[in-house]
Amino acid sequence: MFAGGGEAALIRRYFQGLTSQREGIVNGIGDDSAVVEPPAEGCLAVCCDTLVEGVHFPADIPAEALGHRALAVNLSDIAAVGGEPLWAVLSLTLPADDSHWLEGFADGFKLLADRYGVALIGGDTTRGSLAVTVTVIGRLPKGGGILRSGAQPGDGIWVTGTLGDAALGLKRWHDRAGVPLSGDPALLAAQLFRPEPRVAAGRALRGVASAAIDISDGIAVDLSRLLEESGVGATLILDDLPRSEAYIAEGGDLATMLHGGDDYELCFCSPPLSAEMVEQLSQQAGTSLTRIGTVDATPGLRGVDGAGNVCALQSDGYDHFSS
Amino acid sequence: MFAGGGEAALIRRYFQGLTSQREGIVNGIGDDSAVVEPPAEGCLAVCCDTLVEGVHFPADIPAEALGHRALAVNLSDIAAVGGEPLWAVLSLTLPADDSHWLEGFADGFKLLADRYGVALIGGDTTRGSLAVTVTVIGRLPKGGGILRSGAQPGDGIWVTGTLGDAALGLKRWHDRAGVPLSGDPALLAAQLFRPEPRVAAGRALRGVASAAIDISDGIAVDLSRLLEESGVGATLILDDLPRSEAYIAEGGDLATMLHGGDDYELCFCSPPLSAEMVEQLSQQAGTSLTRIGTVDATPGLRGVDGAGNVCALQSDGYDHFSS
Repeated sequence: MFAGGGEAALIRRYFQGLTSQREGIVNGIGDDSAVVEPPAEGCLAVCCDTLVEGVHFPADIPAEALGHRALAVNLSDIAAVGGEPLWAVLSLTLPADDSHWLEGFADGFKLLADRYGVALIGGDTTRGSLAVTVTVIGRLPKGGGILRSGAQPGDGIWVTGTLGDAALGLKRWHDRAGVPLSGDPALLAAQLFRPEPRVAAGRALRGVASAAIDISDGIAVDLSRLLEESGVGATLILDDLPRSEAYIAEGGDLATMLHGGDDYELCFCSPPLSAEMVEQLSQQAGTSLTRIGTVDATPGLRGVDGAGNVCALQSDGYDHFSS
Repeated sequence: MFAGGGEAALIRRYFQGLTSQREGIVNGIGDDSAVVEPPAEGCLAVCCDTLVEGVHFPADIPAEALGHRALAVNLSDIAAVGGEPLWAVLSLTLPADDSHWLEGFADGFKLLADRYGVALIGGDTTRGSLAVTVTVIGRLPKGGGILRSGAQPGDGIWVTGTLGDAALGLKRWHDRAGVPLSGDPALLAAQLFRPEPRVAAGRALRGVASAAIDISDGIAVDLSRLLEESGVGATLILDDLPRSEAYIAEGGDLATMLHGGDDYELCFCSPPLSAEMVEQLSQQAGTSLTRIGTVDATPGLRGVDGAGNVCALQSDGYDHFSS
């Protein structure tokens, strides 16, 4: 855990401010273990994601964006089960003690943590190739959260926000050739660097969604996982996949929407929803909800195009160990 | 979190078996977040440690030893606050998908987890330079755990087990020149590769110790941290520092006992203890307890040698960011 000496000074300087925003913290940063008091009722959701330079983010990512992103991807995992994030633990592996970089990283992390009332209660700093691991603990109602395994034939399939923006943003980032991004490419890159975790959506979906998953590996592969866990299949209406104006303007294609990673949106299934219900959920979620298909009993994931052609969708998204 | 595709298969194969040993697991490995039910009473201890190849372990460490060690260093952090470990989350960054290596790693992790009834509830696998981050959540009585900040002048200073073994073991490991270690050097290396977390000692010390810390960065630096947090100082009787027979036989020196890292022993302070009490605590802890000095009001850490000479002890242990 965050200890003493140079490491302690580093932590005090950049991260200490984040320990006291939450109820239930008996001891935050500074001892061998943090001590927290869990909520009197309900369950805890626990998730952990690691971001490695060159694998999960480009080497030239702004430090502040990485701080945001490392927390956001975990808040997205908490959101996917309908949880409310409480506490975070941060492990930061750094090649050097660069105070300017650290300041930016801490700022990005803090800004997002503050918005969701998440307290940093501990962690570790080590020397090595740049990598960030965050563990987040959140609160759930008694009985648990929304799982991947509850989808039923006949359920509608929905997605928050729009698809493909982050993957196209990464392309534009790599292509920028030294010129700062602006306009639509900048909007797309923001989806990559500062994804908005769908925490409000996840909470709104409690008791509504039969199953949910975050689609950070691309909707084709992540929805396929959900379908497999639920023992069902699905057909998507490809023309209904939601795309942003920036995505259209930048010529984003269907394949990137289906298979591009880093969209921290939620895909969920639900028995039929009235238009009023969708409107209400969308307001609670603070984002659009788009119906993109229907769960059926035949295993596998299929797509129907505008001409009525049905094709099997490859569930090949981003998987570090599939090769 | 542990997801699908190649990663899911890898996790199912090597780690799935570890999810069901503990009460309170609503959903373990396989969803966006794990869901657990916290104990009805008391607090939770949360800690996180990262091990990086070449920084925290030699590149040629046996996989099974790394699996053990990654969990052990965290159980030691839980032990230092007097906690009982419950659940672990594992993030594993690997350069390649080597099933033989993974099997060894999982075996080492499992064997230790089983002994302490720790359930692996989730995690992440990524590609990159070899690094392991483990987060452990443990249980504490209502009111919290043993802190670093409670030491008082007049308290005795105690340590579990013996000092310096792991650091000398690392030296013998590096020096082995292709010949497998045996005898005393092998015993010392075992302290490095398979440290025994002092979980039983930590629990026995609840209500007894005024302060405690694990001394993984060396007793000089870690005890100095404890003293600083408590606003006190201390004097150690250098001849009383406990050393193992293997350590003596291999010619271990005083400096390595004071400043060598990787001793996952507990150092604690306590008001005077009767011989009966020490005997009882030692039995509960399953290890020797040695009194090595006394807390006093003068800040700083001092040592007294056999001739009565007092010297200031440098609090320079292992700190990745002190240089």
